Amino acid sequence: MGLITLPVIRRMAVCGGTHGNELTGVYLVPELERQRREKGDTLWPVPVTTVLSNPRAVKECKRYVNKDLNRCFTSAILSSPVTDTTPYEVQRAQELNSMLGPKGTADATDIICDLHNTTANMGLTVISYSHTNWVIMHIYKYLQEKITKVPVRLILLNIPICDAYSLESVAKHGISLEVGPQPHGVVRADIFNVMKEGVNVVLDWIQHFNSGKVIEGAEVDVFMFEKSVDYPRDTETQNPLAVIHPQLQDQDFCLLQRGDPLFLTFSGETVGYDEEEPLHPFFINEAAYYEKGIAFHLARKKTLVIPNIQAKND
Amino acid sequence: MGLITLPVIRRMAVCGGTHGNELTGVYLVPELERQRREKGDTLWPVPVTTVLSNPRAVKECKRYVNKDLNRCFTSAILSSPVTDTTPYEVQRAQELNSMLGPKGTADATDIICDLHNTTANMGLTVISYSHTNWVIMHIYKYLQEKITKVPVRLILLNIPICDAYSLESVAKHGISLEVGPQPHGVVRADIFNVMKEGVNVVLDWIQHFNSGKVIEGAEVDVFMFEKSVDYPRDTETQNPLAVIHPQLQDQDFCLLQRGDPLFLTFSGETVGYDEEEPLHPFFINEAAYYEKGIAFHLARKKTLVIPNIQAKND
Repeated sequence: MGLITLPVIRRMAVCGGTHGNELTGVYLVPELERQRREKGDTLWPVPVTTVLSNPRAVKECKRYVNKDLNRCFTSAILSSPVTDTTPYEVQRAQELNSMLGPKGTADATDIICDLHNTTANMGLTVISYSHTNWVIMHIYKYLQEKITKVPVRLILLNIPICDAYSLESVAKHGISLEVGPQPHGVVRADIFNVMKEGVNVVLDWIQHFNSGKVIEGAEVDVFMFEKSVDYPRDTETQNPLAVIHPQLQDQDFCLLQRGDPLFLTFSGETVGYDEEEPLHPFFINEAAYYEKGIAFHLARKKTLVIPNIQAKND
Repeated sequence: MGLITLPVIRRMAVCGGTHGNELTGVYLVPELERQRREKGDTLWPVPVTTVLSNPRAVKECKRYVNKDLNRCFTSAILSSPVTDTTPYEVQRAQELNSMLGPKGTADATDIICDLHNTTANMGLTVISYSHTNWVIMHIYKYLQEKITKVPVRLILLNIPICDAYSLESVAKHGISLEVGPQPHGVVRADIFNVMKEGVNVVLDWIQHFNSGKVIEGAEVDVFMFEKSVDYPRDTETQNPLAVIHPQLQDQDFCLLQRGDPLFLTFSGETVGYDEEEPLHPFFINEAAYYEKGIAFHLARKKTLVIPNIQAKND
């Protein structure tokens, strides 16, 4: 296995409240700011920008005010002209892009850690765009090694970076940290502590990487997004006819085989999995996805080989 | 033990969506309507009115639009004049009072079952106003006997009926059924099935009672509401400084002793219980109560003796 040299990490941002009702980030960002006030700037290995991404939505404890902010970071939306009728979140996305990006440029922040919660039982899940971003893959591996209280997994979305719609895509290395299950509008101490630990592990990795030591590669398992599945619906009213089956509820990342129960109709009938290929469901019964027509996503599991890396000053 | 005779039950109402983001009722009400269409009116022992209480809030999947509907059923609000600026929920409360009440009159529906969810781990909890309403006490006892999947408990609020603010107070016998834990904006099959069973058990009890058999009394344990406890807050910003302690989270109805952990501050310190008297916490970490400044309520457990009762045609 060869050795790949990569630029040192110089700046990082930690963002919470990108969805205003996902409260772990909303409370962790001020806690990081309190730590910095108490212990000074040398607390962390690199300067950390802390951001409350959607303050208006946070105030109303809603996912968003006009439009889902975390779908506004495509190159097209970031470069669209702003008028009086532009949704608040589009304006805010452009502000954040100026602050942390610009996306796709040399000036962009090295790492953005965007903090999210889900009502699904997903432990700590890293969401990322590229399976050849070795910084992200190594951080994922390090999170898996260090965090033992909950399972740590990585979901890869196969989207070209210009079409990537979420906040972390503004950085050179974008990481979305999803921790769940937690109801939106609630802070649970167990979930808060996992997220706090996750951010500390990322900072720890940066220090390790920046020290110039060779970081050894390995094989890692990742989940490649395949497709979304909607609830069975009434053909006329479009109302859902069923909920997630009790045997599937909370079983995120299990392997679904043909015939396994997916849904239970309100009248008590079971609807089974009828795909040829066994796949892994995730974001099962996520509250925010009801309006998007998504009961869960399906992924294919894949083993990737990540190379040895080493930081170089450029 | 003597025998108390009480009027037969002639009409019942099942209400869902009183809080628009508590989805079990929102989906159970149409399911009951489907059952009635399929099996006809004789399906149930008495005519059942099914109501979606706050259709606008349901559409937006919010607790309420202008004002918490389930705080609008006091005699004062129900008799207040309606103008152009009257909040939607006050108008709707008056409509519901005309449909199911009027509150405190002989015309009022005999039983209202109002369906609610909580993010707290409260199993099936009956909430009621009067410890001398023998119909409610007997229904509670019957729910405890019949439902085995989750604990069944009863909370008594000591409020005179004219000041009682919630929808079920419009009926002669008002029952609020709370089932949790479930995130708001989510339907879980396990929670749905408990609620469905709960409503069926109430209907079953009505049939049993109306048959004229003597229903035997017993001792029952109930929880008397004592007071509410807020999160520790920053004296300047009023922001919370702590979350529910992991050892208290999900432990609704446990017995708190002096020194037991209540809160964990964001920086990691434990805040303990400092009341003289051991009490039972409930609605621990309920999402809807953040805006109300309530981390949990405390109750005193009490054993009540309920008499033998028998239905008489009046």
